[in-house]
Amino acid sequence: MSIRTVGVVGTGVIGSSWIGLFLARGLQVIVSDPASGAEQKLAAYLQAIWPTMQKSGLAPNAALTNYRFVGAQFKHHFANVDFVQENAPERIELKTDILGEIDAATRPDVVIASSSSGIPSSRFISKCAVNAGRVLIGHPFNPPHLMPLVEVVPHAETAAASTETAMNFYKSLGRKPVLIRQEIPGFAANRLQAAVCNEAYSLVSRGVLSAQDLDTCVTSSLGPRWAVTGPLLSNAMGGGGGTDGFKHFLEHLGPATRSWMDDMQAHAFQWTPEGLATLRESVAKELQGKDTKELERKRDQCLVEVLRVKGDM
Amino acid sequence: MSIRTVGVVGTGVIGSSWIGLFLARGLQVIVSDPASGAEQKLAAYLQAIWPTMQKSGLAPNAALTNYRFVGAQFKHHFANVDFVQENAPERIELKTDILGEIDAATRPDVVIASSSSGIPSSRFISKCAVNAGRVLIGHPFNPPHLMPLVEVVPHAETAAASTETAMNFYKSLGRKPVLIRQEIPGFAANRLQAAVCNEAYSLVSRGVLSAQDLDTCVTSSLGPRWAVTGPLLSNAMGGGGGTDGFKHFLEHLGPATRSWMDDMQAHAFQWTPEGLATLRESVAKELQGKDTKELERKRDQCLVEVLRVKGDM
Repeated sequence: MSIRTVGVVGTGVIGSSWIGLFLARGLQVIVSDPASGAEQKLAAYLQAIWPTMQKSGLAPNAALTNYRFVGAQFKHHFANVDFVQENAPERIELKTDILGEIDAATRPDVVIASSSSGIPSSRFISKCAVNAGRVLIGHPFNPPHLMPLVEVVPHAETAAASTETAMNFYKSLGRKPVLIRQEIPGFAANRLQAAVCNEAYSLVSRGVLSAQDLDTCVTSSLGPRWAVTGPLLSNAMGGGGGTDGFKHFLEHLGPATRSWMDDMQAHAFQWTPEGLATLRESVAKELQGKDTKELERKRDQCLVEVLRVKGDM
Repeated sequence: MSIRTVGVVGTGVIGSSWIGLFLARGLQVIVSDPASGAEQKLAAYLQAIWPTMQKSGLAPNAALTNYRFVGAQFKHHFANVDFVQENAPERIELKTDILGEIDAATRPDVVIASSSSGIPSSRFISKCAVNAGRVLIGHPFNPPHLMPLVEVVPHAETAAASTETAMNFYKSLGRKPVLIRQEIPGFAANRLQAAVCNEAYSLVSRGVLSAQDLDTCVTSSLGPRWAVTGPLLSNAMGGGGGTDGFKHFLEHLGPATRSWMDDMQAHAFQWTPEGLATLRESVAKELQGKDTKELERKRDQCLVEVLRVKGDM
């Protein structure tokens, strides 16, 4: 069954961005958010990102107005949605209640995806009396209207068909869903990001290099490399490619990598007040005199161009 | 004093790529390598990369032929070079001998930069009788004719003026030099890369996701993000930007980041035969049926485009 109408709960940063993507791909959206002023905020946000969505190519039947805002009352409006993307705040009790209500309000075969980055879905399905087997995580990388990644994380009882439907749906939107087979803390992308950030905090707090140089270091080397080839493929190609490239790489550079890891662990960032103060000071120096709005504008513009070059826009 | 002629020792992957960059920027190069066939290999390599250098914009006086190959005998040809980039194999005794000879063969004020990624320069200056204070590391990110990063790592006795000369010289080539103030193992970029690779090895060897999905995860999220804004600036902008953005970010996401770090350390990749076998198998599956040459062609093409978008080409 094809997905034509998506139910969205929560219109914070992530929810609003998802709606922009759904609309650009020609879908109808039923939007729910209990907050006062949420409807106006959403409208303004969609207006702001629509030019970018237009540049990235709209579906033939796409329209900025193809959504209906229903306030807190999704219960009465989700009977005909074909997919749900839930973006409520990261509180287990709240999510448990909301998921129970979504489960009761939708057709029992409709996949319910939660954008949660921090709580695996097994922890908030206890009130899903109809069918908890269609609940899973569909965690985007912010902002989802630009970033291709969606981490799809089923819980132990999620039906394989629901996982497949979610993967196919995100693919149909031009996203790059990846399947996370275990509900581990932080899933994959946030863990990899934390690994880099922790070493970055250590290096800067120890005075090895400035925050500005740390950032330049990454944007001038690892960032462009990993925008094009991921860490494992980069390793394999660094080892000469082919079936033995990765093996060669590990034989040649494995010992060095291990010794660097040992040194990193020995000097891991300790989150002490002194370490944090030095780190914050160096980051403040990097940002000094820079206009946040201008930085954001440049970042988004450059990001769109990078994604276009990669064929992701 | 301006740098017009560069002495290059060693024409492996890194040395040859440096030469391509120097020539494209209109410099003269004196090239030394004792290996038989090195001259022909270098000529073929330069021919292969020259179209890319042409597209990136040549200096007015740039020419592919502005170099002289002098075999093993740099001693008799380095009297008039203005900068040395050394790329000998990573063996301390060998580098110690070569650095001593370069030190004796050049004007005493000429900066001698080593491309070494693994050995800090303090460990191979013992035979530099003339002036060890002009020796430092100028470690590029492979390949230097494309990648902007150069890690400049002085040793404890390197003169500030030599460090400054090296930083300015690399900047004049359109590179992005960063100053690494301590001779720590792996400097900065390789440590950050190792941090990600180790977590990637752990996730894939534990079956959390496939090698292919791990790579997709990075190329669809962190890679493009870090091509545009480095980890610390990304944090600060994620926290709302401005002077308090980074503080806000750490307050909001610091606890989660720490808990992910704890979980990563508890499940750190152990380099066991079983773990390595699972990892290699998954990477092999990712590479199955893919042509290495075609992958490399696509990677280089995409990388050049990404760097052009960023203004780095």
